[in-house]
Amino acid sequence: MLNEFSLISRYFSRPSQAPGSAVLGVGDDCALLAPRAGKALAISSDMLVEGRHFFAGADARALGHKTLAVNLSDLAAMGASPRAFTLALALPVIDEAWLEEFSAGMFALADPAGCELIGGDTTRGPLTLCVTVFGDVDAGRALRRDAAQVGDDVWVSGTLGDARLALGALRNEWTLNAAELAEVQRSLDWPEPQLALGMALAGVAHAALDISDGLAGDLGHIVARSNVGARINVDALPRSATLARQTPQIQRQCTIAGGDDYQLCFTASVRARDVVLSASSQAGTSVSRVGTITAFDEAADAARIVWTDAGGQPLALALRGFDHFDD
Amino acid sequence: MLNEFSLISRYFSRPSQAPGSAVLGVGDDCALLAPRAGKALAISSDMLVEGRHFFAGADARALGHKTLAVNLSDLAAMGASPRAFTLALALPVIDEAWLEEFSAGMFALADPAGCELIGGDTTRGPLTLCVTVFGDVDAGRALRRDAAQVGDDVWVSGTLGDARLALGALRNEWTLNAAELAEVQRSLDWPEPQLALGMALAGVAHAALDISDGLAGDLGHIVARSNVGARINVDALPRSATLARQTPQIQRQCTIAGGDDYQLCFTASVRARDVVLSASSQAGTSVSRVGTITAFDEAADAARIVWTDAGGQPLALALRGFDHFDD
Repeated sequence: MLNEFSLISRYFSRPSQAPGSAVLGVGDDCALLAPRAGKALAISSDMLVEGRHFFAGADARALGHKTLAVNLSDLAAMGASPRAFTLALALPVIDEAWLEEFSAGMFALADPAGCELIGGDTTRGPLTLCVTVFGDVDAGRALRRDAAQVGDDVWVSGTLGDARLALGALRNEWTLNAAELAEVQRSLDWPEPQLALGMALAGVAHAALDISDGLAGDLGHIVARSNVGARINVDALPRSATLARQTPQIQRQCTIAGGDDYQLCFTASVRARDVVLSASSQAGTSVSRVGTITAFDEAADAARIVWTDAGGQPLALALRGFDHFDD
Repeated sequence: MLNEFSLISRYFSRPSQAPGSAVLGVGDDCALLAPRAGKALAISSDMLVEGRHFFAGADARALGHKTLAVNLSDLAAMGASPRAFTLALALPVIDEAWLEEFSAGMFALADPAGCELIGGDTTRGPLTLCVTVFGDVDAGRALRRDAAQVGDDVWVSGTLGDARLALGALRNEWTLNAAELAEVQRSLDWPEPQLALGMALAGVAHAALDISDGLAGDLGHIVARSNVGARINVDALPRSATLARQTPQIQRQCTIAGGDDYQLCFTASVRARDVVLSASSQAGTSVSRVGTITAFDEAADAARIVWTDAGGQPLALALRGFDHFDD
């Protein structure tokens, strides 16, 4: 039986993949990370709990990928470049096959991203995964939530809603055939953090975040923090061919209120359209213009976000973001 | 009912206590931390699970203190100066009275230490707490585990074993009267990270760590990583008056194999004794010289650590550190 220390050593302590990144890695009281000249360190921490963020018995390799991916997505949303991460995990039992797959999935994402595992903790407990991730960014060019300007375009990357479409099928909210499910489940299980796009947008976009809880809730953070409103064309929200074949109600629910997409939502000046499109092309990720940032009068008692159809007619939608305390 | 976002806002998002520390704190995709010139960032992450690291129903204020204390102790063990931390927590229910107490206990330790909460995550799940802590340290003066030198003195701070003595009483392994239990339980529930001592020892001590898993296991890391041995005088291990009244067997078990003390164990040159004592006095923490680092011959098949009595006679002890995967 492996004890805690040989466990760390066997699966999570490797020769550094990025020589010179961390001064001191796994195995001491602390890791040491040397700052890069002129850069601030972007830091984010996410906790994933079995039965809440992933199904019991989830594929270990996909879970290793997703645990790191959701954290890298936070770096992408700041325009930061990945450097390192820590991993704390509680495991009900030591299952070597599981650890082998989990760590393989995690490192297959970490290594090409230049993100080194520098420390962490392992303990026995209900399966819980906590990653804290570190990236470099110019503080003045970081993509914050509170920087949207009235008149900005609102953009989203990739397509929205496939992860929610897969989740709904797995929960029997609706039915997909096997080929459809396989196609959209990839978005749920293997989300790709939009790192290249985030870095290309640093200093170009005004506000940005990653869509982890659904566009309605997440864009809600941008407009609230920036003290503005938004007008969004629901029909312009990009969606996969599979999602586009579902009923209009499912399409709207998935694109607007679907979590777990990990695409970027950002705002940028109308004058920056060409620069945004060239950032998109440079990053190899599509972007779609879906609306406009509007002035918001707190006293007027109106919704901050107005959802419209392609003709500009406001729609009455009772949709909201995903809240981890809302069963 | 509070949702995730108002929860974060109410209990964990406060005006910065240390203006200028973090560029951007709680509430964005990432926090931004600006490096200090010439310093490396020391980073440590610990996960605490209910029923494993603390009893179900543990006092929330003490738990808030301890969750941060065990992480600050890792900074102390590197000689680093605290700057900031993130907190990820899974909660089975939202209990506002609990959150009020938990956050009060955490901030009462964080604020005087100059350690700012800059981000984190909250979710529903079995009660699990994960803190990642950040400190500044000169990379060249950091107290590592692999730097013990043959001939070094071995020192420990404070007294050892009270936390284990309290735990044993709470588990009915032995009996203490109420006054004794109250006295030693403070070490278990309210451990004090030895930050001032750690900083005073940076550049003075050779190797160091904090004793979280018991002296035998933790000193075992120093000697293994430094490829040396050690000879420790068991009778010289500092203990409280309460522990000194227990049977010799309990005293040894608690001082040598007791976890959760969060005192420092460090090695330093014999020539540095006066400097160590003056660091101790400057930090207001007692230190005791308990043994010597010895040469170790891997081929000789001997124990790396020889435990002796005050007369230098080796003792046969079957003791080990605390392993979170060893029930």
